[in-house]
Amino acid sequence: MYSFDLDTYGKCAMVNITKQVREAVQKSGVAEGSVIVCCPHTTAGITINENSDPDVVTDVLDGLEQIVPKLPYRHDEGNSDAHIKCSLVGISVVLPVEDGEPVLGRWQGIYFCEFDGPRNRRFTVAVNGVR
Amino acid sequence: MYSFDLDTYGKCAMVNITKQVREAVQKSGVAEGSVIVCCPHTTAGITINENSDPDVVTDVLDGLEQIVPKLPYRHDEGNSDAHIKCSLVGISVVLPVEDGEPVLGRWQGIYFCEFDGPRNRRFTVAVNGVR
Amino acid sequence: MYSFDLDTYGKCAMVNITKQVREAVQKSGVAEGSVIVCCPHTTAGITINENSDPDVVTDVLDGLEQIVPKLPYRHDEGNSDAHIKCSLVGISVVLPVEDGEPVLGRWQGIYFCEFDGPRNRRFTVAVNGVR
Repeated sequence: MYSFDLDTYGKCAMVNITKQVREAVQKSGVAEGSVIVCCPHTTAGITINENSDPDVVTDVLDGLEQIVPKLPYRHDEGNSDAHIKCSLVGISVVLPVEDGEPVLGRWQGIYFCEFDGPRNRRFTVAVNGVR
Repeated sequence: MYSFDLDTYGKCAMVNITKQVREAVQKSGVAEGSVIVCCPHTTAGITINENSDPDVVTDVLDGLEQIVPKLPYRHDEGNSDAHIKCSLVGISVVLPVEDGEPVLGRWQGIYFCEFDGPRNRRFTVAVNGVR
Repeated sequence: MYSFDLDTYGKCAMVNITKQVREAVQKSGVAEGSVIVCCPHTTAGITINENSDPDVVTDVLDGLEQIVPKLPYRHDEGNSDAHIKCSLVGISVVLPVEDGEPVLGRWQGIYFCEFDGPRNRRFTVAVNGVR
């Protein structure tokens, strides 16, 4: 299992972590199997979306911001919107590993999603399978 | 594979099942690998969110209730809102297993999400890996 | 790993791919383990929902359409709504495999979700475990 630290740069952000995931899969030596990318937080998430036009992740963050309603939430830390986004997006993704690489489409990138930053955060890459 | 029954206590509810998941992982004897927690329903889900302040899950449920629109749905059982929440939240989570324990952050709990209760429900924990 | 092509029939659609997933699991020879169903796209997804009344998937698609706001998005391909749905629903599902079959509830079907069609699309089924 490999752990990575990152610093997020705003209240909400999507940070491309595809490179770190690829490197962890290669380092593991697993040729065929699966890779789990997950985060240990409850106001962040992991998702896969377009890796090309940076406007896409801005639009995804703007969309999520509008989707989550502004309610008089009970949780006194004032970040219930981030907890809701966490359960909408999810804290992990799982991909097959083939020929020692995570199976990703040409336009897919793996993103760490910050919903309550900026903060120092962490994510984990676990690779299982046969060498 | 381990199966668990539970009775949900309202139309919508989030029941902390972290203890059952931990016990299943320990019982499996798997030291390194992965654990899938899933439910066999289409109006429920599995998610990970904060395990500390119970207001968080109330806020998540309230947020989801507002997010799903009140439309003249076609499905004649009248629970299309619950089916939509099911696809938003997802029916499973996957976590790494390390040193015989599911890899969870300090504030993370695993929740069974009821969206069309109260009902008798079921969830499954499957552990794969090496002993 | 098994790959499948499909042609989607509208802007938005949910195509039941349970049969293909079952066949891939059987073909793999894996008796106990896990199956990942994923797509290599960023304007589509994979979800599990009711396999019986076809009105359910229509309602899920209608609900998602209302959930995603109509904003002046930046991405110039005009399909940011589909990218947002992609991150809400997710591009993969993972299920346990037991006795050579994916573990599904009686009413659960696995769906390829098209959010920006009609198009020729692809999905992948990867099965890991012991024979």
